Amino acid sequence: MKPKDIEQAKARASALLRKARIAVTPEERETMEVADLGLGDIKNLGLEVIVYENNDRYCAKELILFPRQTCPEHRHPRVDDRNPGKKETFRCRYGEIFLYVAGEPAPRPKARVPKKHREFMTVWHEIILRPGDQYTLPPNALHWFQAGDKGAVVSEFSSTSTDENDVFTDPRIRRVGK
Amino acid sequence: MKPKDIEQAKARASALLRKARIAVTPEERETMEVADLGLGDIKNLGLEVIVYENNDRYCAKELILFPRQTCPEHRHPRVDDRNPGKKETFRCRYGEIFLYVAGEPAPRPKARVPKKHREFMTVWHEIILRPGDQYTLPPNALHWFQAGDKGAVVSEFSSTSTDENDVFTDPRIRRVGK
Repeated sequence: MKPKDIEQAKARASALLRKARIAVTPEERETMEVADLGLGDIKNLGLEVIVYENNDRYCAKELILFPRQTCPEHRHPRVDDRNPGKKETFRCRYGEIFLYVAGEPAPRPKARVPKKHREFMTVWHEIILRPGDQYTLPPNALHWFQAGDKGAVVSEFSSTSTDENDVFTDPRIRRVGK
Repeated sequence: MKPKDIEQAKARASALLRKARIAVTPEERETMEVADLGLGDIKNLGLEVIVYENNDRYCAKELILFPRQTCPEHRHPRVDDRNPGKKETFRCRYGEIFLYVAGEPAPRPKARVPKKHREFMTVWHEIILRPGDQYTLPPNALHWFQAGDKGAVVSEFSSTSTDENDVFTDPRIRRVGK
Protein backbone atom coordinates (compact mmCIF):
# COMPACT_ATOMS: atom_id res chain seq x y z
CA MET A 1 0.00 0.00 0.00
CA LYS A 2 1.09 3.57 -0.65
CA PRO A 3 1.93 5.58 2.50
CA LYS A 4 -0.84 8.04 1.61
CA ASP A 5 -3.44 5.27 1.45
CA ILE A 6 -2.26 3.82 4.75
CA GLU A 7 -2.54 7.22 6.43
CA GLN A 8 -6.00 7.74 4.96
CA ALA A 9 -7.16 4.34 6.25
CA LYS A 10 -5.77 5.06 9.71
CA ALA A 11 -7.57 8.40 9.84
CA ARG A 12 -10.82 6.78 8.81
CA ALA A 13 -10.44 4.00 11.38
CA SER A 14 -9.58 6.55 14.07
CA ALA A 15 -12.78 8.43 13.29
CA LEU A 16 -14.74 5.19 13.80
CA LEU A 17 -13.03 4.63 17.16
CA ARG A 18 -14.02 8.12 18.22
CA LYS A 19 -17.61 7.45 17.21
CA ALA A 20 -17.48 4.23 19.22
CA ARG A 21 -16.04 6.20 22.19
CA ILE A 22 -13.07 3.86 22.40
CA ALA A 23 -9.93 5.54 23.70
CA VAL A 24 -6.58 4.61 22.20
CA THR A 25 -3.18 6.18 22.71
CA PRO A 26 -1.52 8.30 20.00
CA GLU A 27 1.07 5.52 19.66
CA GLU A 28 -1.63 2.89 19.14
CA ARG A 29 -3.22 5.07 16.47
CA GLU A 30 0.16 5.44 14.80
CA THR A 31 1.07 1.74 14.86
CA MET A 32 -2.41 0.56 13.83
CA GLU A 33 -2.17 -2.22 11.27
CA VAL A 34 -3.88 -1.52 7.95
CA ALA A 35 -4.25 -5.00 6.48
CA ASP A 36 -5.14 -4.98 2.80
CA LEU A 37 -3.91 -8.58 2.62
CA GLY A 38 -2.10 -7.85 -0.60
CA LEU A 39 -5.36 -7.36 -2.51
CA GLY A 40 -4.96 -3.62 -3.03
CA ASP A 41 -8.62 -2.87 -2.28
CA ILE A 42 -8.60 -1.70 1.36
CA LYS A 43 -11.93 0.15 1.08
CA ASN A 44 -13.68 -3.16 0.47
CA LEU A 45 -11.35 -5.95 1.57
CA GLY A 46 -9.23 -6.09 4.69
CA LEU A 47 -9.42 -4.52 8.11
CA GLU A 48 -7.71 -2.18 10.55
CA VAL A 49 -6.28 -3.63 13.74
CA ILE A 50 -4.91 -2.31 17.02
CA VAL A 51 -3.10 -5.03 18.96
CA TYR A 52 -3.49 -4.23 22.66
CA GLU A 53 -1.60 -7.28 23.89
CA ASN A 54 -0.26 -10.45 22.33
CA ASN A 55 1.78 -12.71 24.57
CA ASP A 56 2.47 -16.43 24.89
CA ARG A 57 -0.88 -16.99 26.62
CA TYR A 58 -3.53 -14.61 25.28
CA CYS A 59 -4.19 -11.81 22.83
CA ALA A 60 -6.53 -8.81 22.70
CA LYS A 61 -7.14 -6.60 19.70
CA GLU A 62 -9.57 -3.98 18.52
CA LEU A 63 -10.72 -4.61 14.94
CA ILE A 64 -12.05 -1.65 12.99
CA LEU A 65 -14.00 -2.11 9.77
CA PHE A 66 -15.17 0.56 7.37
CA PRO A 67 -18.78 0.42 6.19
CA ARG A 68 -19.18 -2.85 4.25
CA GLN A 69 -15.46 -3.64 4.53
CA THR A 70 -14.94 -7.42 4.50
CA CYS A 71 -12.37 -9.57 6.25
CA PRO A 72 -11.97 -12.44 3.77
CA GLU A 73 -12.53 -16.09 4.63
CA HIS A 74 -9.76 -17.76 6.62
CA ARG A 75 -9.01 -20.17 9.45
CA HIS A 76 -6.44 -20.55 12.21
CA PRO A 77 -4.97 -24.07 11.98
CA ARG A 78 -2.85 -25.94 14.50
CA VAL A 79 0.55 -24.29 14.89
CA ASP A 80 2.43 -26.78 17.08
CA ASP A 81 2.02 -28.92 20.20
CA ARG A 82 1.63 -25.83 22.38
CA ASN A 83 -0.78 -24.03 20.07
CA PRO A 84 -3.65 -26.15 18.65
CA GLY A 85 -4.76 -23.16 16.57
CA LYS A 86 -6.10 -19.79 17.59
CA LYS A 87 -9.42 -19.74 19.42
CA GLU A 88 -11.11 -16.35 19.32
CA THR A 89 -14.08 -14.38 20.59
CA PHE A 90 -15.53 -11.48 18.62
CA ARG A 91 -17.44 -8.94 20.68
CA CYS A 92 -19.20 -6.16 18.80
CA ARG A 93 -18.65 -2.75 20.41
CA TYR A 94 -20.04 -0.46 17.73
CA GLY A 95 -21.98 -0.85 14.48
CA GLU A 96 -22.97 -4.20 13.11
CA ILE A 97 -21.00 -7.27 11.99
CA PHE A 98 -22.23 -10.02 9.70
CA LEU A 99 -20.16 -13.08 10.59
CA TYR A 100 -20.18 -16.24 8.48
CA VAL A 101 -19.21 -19.73 9.62
CA ALA A 102 -19.89 -23.31 8.51
CA GLY A 103 -23.51 -24.42 8.83
CA GLU A 104 -26.92 -23.90 7.29
CA PRO A 105 -26.40 -21.08 4.75
CA ALA A 106 -28.46 -17.91 5.15
CA PRO A 107 -31.13 -17.80 2.42
CA ARG A 108 -30.69 -14.04 2.07
CA PRO A 109 -27.34 -13.08 3.62
CA LYS A 110 -26.95 -9.51 4.78
CA ALA A 111 -23.36 -9.23 3.57
CA ARG A 112 -22.83 -7.91 0.06
CA VAL A 113 -19.80 -9.46 -1.57
CA PRO A 114 -18.52 -8.27 -4.97
CA LYS A 115 -18.87 -11.04 -7.57
CA LYS A 116 -15.14 -11.40 -8.14
CA HIS A 117 -14.61 -12.29 -4.47
CA ARG A 118 -17.63 -14.53 -3.98
CA GLU A 119 -15.90 -17.74 -5.01
CA PHE A 120 -13.57 -17.37 -2.01
CA MET A 121 -16.43 -17.18 0.50
CA THR A 122 -17.47 -20.80 1.01
CA VAL A 123 -19.27 -20.68 4.41
CA TRP A 124 -22.57 -18.83 4.66
CA HIS A 125 -24.12 -19.57 8.04
CA GLU A 126 -24.91 -16.07 9.26
CA ILE A 127 -24.40 -14.65 12.74
CA ILE A 128 -25.33 -11.03 13.27
CA LEU A 129 -23.47 -9.21 16.03
CA ARG A 130 -24.66 -5.89 17.37
CA PRO A 131 -23.12 -3.93 20.29
CA GLY A 132 -22.92 -6.26 23.29
CA ASP A 133 -23.20 -9.44 21.19
CA GLN A 134 -20.31 -11.86 20.89
CA TYR A 135 -19.40 -15.18 19.30
CA THR A 136 -16.55 -17.61 19.98
CA LEU A 137 -14.89 -19.57 17.18
CA PRO A 138 -13.03 -22.84 17.82
CA PRO A 139 -9.57 -23.31 16.28
CA ASN A 140 -9.47 -23.97 12.55
CA ALA A 141 -13.09 -22.87 11.91
CA LEU A 142 -13.51 -21.17 8.53
CA HIS A 143 -14.99 -17.68 8.92
CA TRP A 144 -15.29 -14.32 7.29
CA PHE A 145 -17.13 -11.13 8.20
CA GLN A 146 -18.39 -7.85 6.86
CA ALA A 147 -19.34 -4.64 8.66
CA GLY A 148 -22.78 -3.10 8.19
CA ASP A 149 -23.46 0.32 6.71
CA LYS A 150 -22.04 2.28 9.67
CA GLY A 151 -18.81 0.31 9.88
CA ALA A 152 -17.94 -1.58 13.04
CA VAL A 153 -15.58 -1.86 15.97
CA VAL A 154 -15.08 -5.37 17.34
CA SER A 155 -13.04 -6.47 20.35
CA GLU A 156 -11.19 -9.70 19.68
CA PHE A 157 -10.22 -11.79 22.70
CA SER A 158 -8.18 -14.86 21.83
CA SER A 159 -5.37 -17.25 22.48
CA THR A 160 -1.95 -16.21 21.20
CA SER A 161 -2.13 -14.68 17.73
CA THR A 162 0.30 -15.85 15.04
CA ASP A 163 -1.13 -14.18 11.94
CA GLU A 164 1.51 -15.70 9.67
CA ASN A 165 -0.14 -19.11 10.22
CA ASP A 166 -3.57 -18.01 9.01
CA VAL A 167 -4.88 -19.88 5.98
CA PHE A 168 -7.02 -17.84 3.59
CA THR A 169 -9.39 -19.38 1.06
CA ASP A 170 -8.33 -16.88 -1.61
CA PRO A 171 -4.90 -18.13 -2.75
CA ARG A 172 -3.85 -14.61 -3.75
CA ILE A 173 -3.89 -13.45 -0.13
CA ARG A 174 -0.63 -13.03 1.69
CA ARG A 175 -1.01 -12.08 5.34
CA VAL A 176 1.75 -9.67 6.15
CA GLY A 177 1.58 -9.12 9.85
CA LYS A 178 2.99 -9.88 13.17
CA MET B 1 -24.86 -9.78 50.62
CA LYS B 2 -28.57 -9.04 50.79
CA PRO B 3 -30.44 -9.35 47.48
CA LYS B 4 -31.39 -5.67 47.71
CA ASP B 5 -27.75 -4.60 48.07
CA ILE B 6 -26.72 -6.79 45.15
CA GLU B 7 -29.43 -5.26 42.96
CA GLN B 8 -28.39 -1.76 43.99
CA ALA B 9 -24.75 -2.46 43.15
CA LYS B 10 -25.74 -3.90 39.77
CA ALA B 11 -27.81 -0.83 38.97
CA ARG B 12 -24.95 1.47 39.93
CA ALA B 13 -22.46 -0.52 37.86
CA SER B 14 -24.85 -0.54 34.91
CA ALA B 15 -25.07 3.24 35.08
CA LEU B 16 -21.27 3.43 34.90
CA LEU B 17 -21.27 1.16 31.85
CA ARG B 18 -23.78 3.45 30.18
CA LYS B 19 -21.59 6.47 30.94
CA ALA B 20 -18.64 4.58 29.47
CA ARG B 21 -20.78 3.76 26.39
CA ILE B 22 -20.09 0.06 26.80
CA ALA B 23 -22.91 -2.13 25.55
CA VAL B 24 -23.80 -5.27 27.48
CA THR B 25 -26.72 -7.63 27.03
CA PRO B 26 -29.60 -7.72 29.53
CA GLU B 27 -28.40 -11.21 30.54
CA GLU B 28 -24.87 -9.94 31.20
CA ARG B 29 -26.30 -7.15 33.34
CA GLU B 30 -28.34 -9.70 35.24
CA THR B 31 -25.52 -12.18 35.82
CA MET B 32 -22.95 -9.51 36.70
CA GLU B 33 -20.85 -10.58 39.67
CA VAL B 34 -20.99 -8.25 42.66
CA ALA B 35 -17.87 -9.29 44.61
CA ASP B 36 -17.82 -7.94 48.15
CA LEU B 37 -15.23 -10.61 49.00
CA GLY B 38 -17.04 -11.38 52.20
CA LEU B 39 -16.12 -8.01 53.73
CA GLY B 40 -19.65 -6.59 53.69
CA ASP B 41 -18.52 -3.15 52.51
CA ILE B 42 -19.24 -3.20 48.75
CA LYS B 43 -19.31 0.60 48.44
CA ASN B 44 -15.64 0.75 49.38
CA LEU B 45 -14.19 -2.72 48.93
CA GLY B 46 -14.78 -5.13 46.09
CA LEU B 47 -15.74 -4.76 42.48
CA GLU B 48 -18.36 -5.56 39.87
CA VAL B 49 -17.47 -7.98 37.07
CA ILE B 50 -18.97 -9.08 33.77
CA VAL B 51 -17.25 -12.19 32.44
CA TYR B 52 -17.42 -12.06 28.64
CA GLU B 53 -15.51 -15.28 28.08
CA ASN B 54 -13.50 -17.64 30.22
CA ASN B 55 -12.26 -20.81 28.54
CA ASP B 56 -9.27 -23.13 28.85
CA ARG B 57 -7.06 -20.70 26.91
CA TYR B 58 -8.04 -17.11 27.63
CA CYS B 59 -10.41 -14.88 29.56
CA ALA B 60 -11.96 -11.45 29.02
CA LYS B 61 -13.91 -9.47 31.59
CA GLU B 62 -15.19 -5.97 32.12
CA LEU B 63 -14.42 -4.69 35.64
CA ILE B 64 -16.59 -1.90 36.98
CA LEU B 65 -15.57 0.10 40.05
CA PHE B 66 -17.60 2.70 41.89
CA PRO B 67 -15.89 5.99 42.74
CA ARG B 68 -13.02 5.16 45.12
CA GLN B 69 -14.02 1.49 45.30
CA THR B 70 -10.95 -0.68 45.95
CA CYS B 71 -10.09 -4.17 44.80
CA PRO B 72 -7.99 -5.45 47.70
CA GLU B 73 -4.43 -6.73 47.35
CA HIS B 74 -4.07 -10.20 45.90
CA ARG B 75 -2.04 -12.38 43.56
CA HIS B 76 -2.65 -15.24 41.13
CA PRO B 77 -0.27 -18.09 42.00
CA ARG B 78 0.64 -21.16 40.00
CA VAL B 79 -2.37 -23.49 39.69
CA ASP B 80 -0.86 -26.59 38.09
CA ASP B 81 1.50 -27.64 35.29
CA ARG B 82 -0.83 -26.25 32.65
CA ASN B 83 -1.50 -22.97 34.43
CA PRO B 84 1.57 -21.20 35.90
CA GLY B 85 -0.73 -18.54 37.37
CA LYS B 86 -2.98 -16.00 35.74
CA LYS B 87 -1.30 -13.35 33.64
CA GLU B 88 -3.52 -10.31 33.07
CA THR B 89 -3.74 -7.01 31.25
CA PHE B 90 -5.81 -4.12 32.62
CA ARG B 91 -6.95 -1.60 30.02
CA CYS B 92 -8.75 1.47 31.30
CA ARG B 93 -11.86 2.28 29.25
CA TYR B 94 -13.46 4.96 31.40
CA GLY B 95 -12.51 6.98 34.48
CA GLU B 96 -9.23 6.54 36.25
CA ILE B 97 -7.56 3.60 37.99
CA PHE B 98 -4.77 3.78 40.56
CA LEU B 99 -2.98 0.45 40.33
CA TYR B 100 -0.38 -0.64 42.89
CA VAL B 101 2.34 -3.24 42.38
CA ALA B 102 5.70 -4.10 43.95
CA GLY B 103 8.41 -1.47 43.49
CA GLU B 104 9.38 2.01 44.60
CA PRO B 105 6.44 3.22 46.72
CA ALA B 106 4.65 6.39 45.65
CA PRO B 107 5.54 9.20 48.07
CA ARG B 108 1.99 10.58 47.89
CA PRO B 109 -0.27 7.82 46.53
CA LYS B 110 -3.47 8.92 44.88
CA ALA B 111 -5.52 6.07 46.36
CA ARG B 112 -7.24 6.74 49.65
CA VAL B 113 -7.46 3.61 51.78
CA PRO B 114 -9.42 3.54 55.05
CA LYS B 115 -7.06 3.00 58.00
CA LYS B 116 -8.54 -0.35 58.95
CA HIS B 117 -7.66 -1.79 55.54
CA ARG B 118 -4.25 -0.21 55.10
CA GLU B 119 -2.32 -3.03 56.75
CA PHE B 120 -3.46 -5.37 53.97
CA MET B 121 -2.05 -3.15 51.22
CA THR B 122 1.66 -3.95 51.18
CA VAL B 123 2.72 -2.84 47.65
CA TRP B 124 2.64 0.87 46.82
CA HIS B 125 4.33 1.38 43.47
CA GLU B 126 1.74 3.47 41.66
CA ILE B 127 0.58 3.13 38.08
CA ILE B 128 -2.12 5.52 36.91
CA LEU B 129 -4.33 4.28 34.10
CA ARG B 130 -6.57 6.63 32.15
CA PRO B 131 -8.73 5.72 29.13
CA GLY B 132 -6.51 4.04 26.54
CA ASP B 133 -3.78 3.16 29.06
CA GLN B 134 -3.02 -0.42 30.00
CA TYR B 135 -0.69 -2.49 32.16
CA THR B 136 0.20 -6.19 32.11
CA LEU B 137 0.88 -8.12 35.31
CA PRO B 138 2.95 -11.32 35.34
CA PRO B 139 1.61 -14.35 37.26
CA ASN B 140 1.80 -14.17 41.03
CA ALA B 141 2.45 -10.40 41.17
CA LEU B 142 0.85 -8.74 44.19
CA HIS B 143 -1.48 -5.94 43.15
CA TRP B 144 -4.46 -3.88 44.22
CA PHE B 145 -6.32 -0.99 42.67
CA GLN B 146 -8.75 1.80 43.38
CA ALA B 147 -10.96 3.84 41.03
CA GLY B 148 -10.74 7.61 40.95
CA ASP B 149 -13.57 9.99 41.82
CA LYS B 150 -15.68 9.17 38.73
CA GLY B 151 -15.44 5.40 39.12
CA ALA B 152 -13.89 3.30 36.39
CA VAL B 153 -14.48 0.66 33.77
CA VAL B 154 -11.49 -1.56 32.99
CA SER B 155 -11.21 -4.31 30.39
CA GLU B 156 -9.30 -7.29 31.70
CA PHE B 157 -7.63 -9.55 29.13
CA SER B 158 -5.96 -12.59 30.65
CA SER B 159 -5.10 -16.25 30.63
CA THR B 160 -7.74 -18.58 32.03
CA SER B 161 -9.32 -17.23 35.20
CA THR B 162 -9.67 -19.48 38.25
CA ASP B 163 -10.74 -16.98 40.91
CA GLU B 164 -10.84 -19.65 43.62
CA ASN B 165 -7.04 -19.84 43.44
CA ASP B 166 -6.51 -16.13 44.16
CA VAL B 167 -4.55 -15.37 47.30
CA PHE B 168 -5.57 -12.20 49.15
CA THR B 169 -3.33 -10.42 51.64
CA ASP B 170 -6.28 -9.83 53.99
CA PRO B 171 -6.88 -13.25 55.60
CA ARG B 172 -10.56 -12.43 56.14
CA ILE B 173 -11.23 -12.40 52.41
CA ARG B 174 -12.96 -15.33 50.84
CA ARG B 175 -13.25 -15.14 47.06
CA VAL B 176 -16.59 -16.58 46.14
CA GLY B 177 -16.63 -16.80 42.41
CA LYS B 178 -16.38 -18.96 39.40
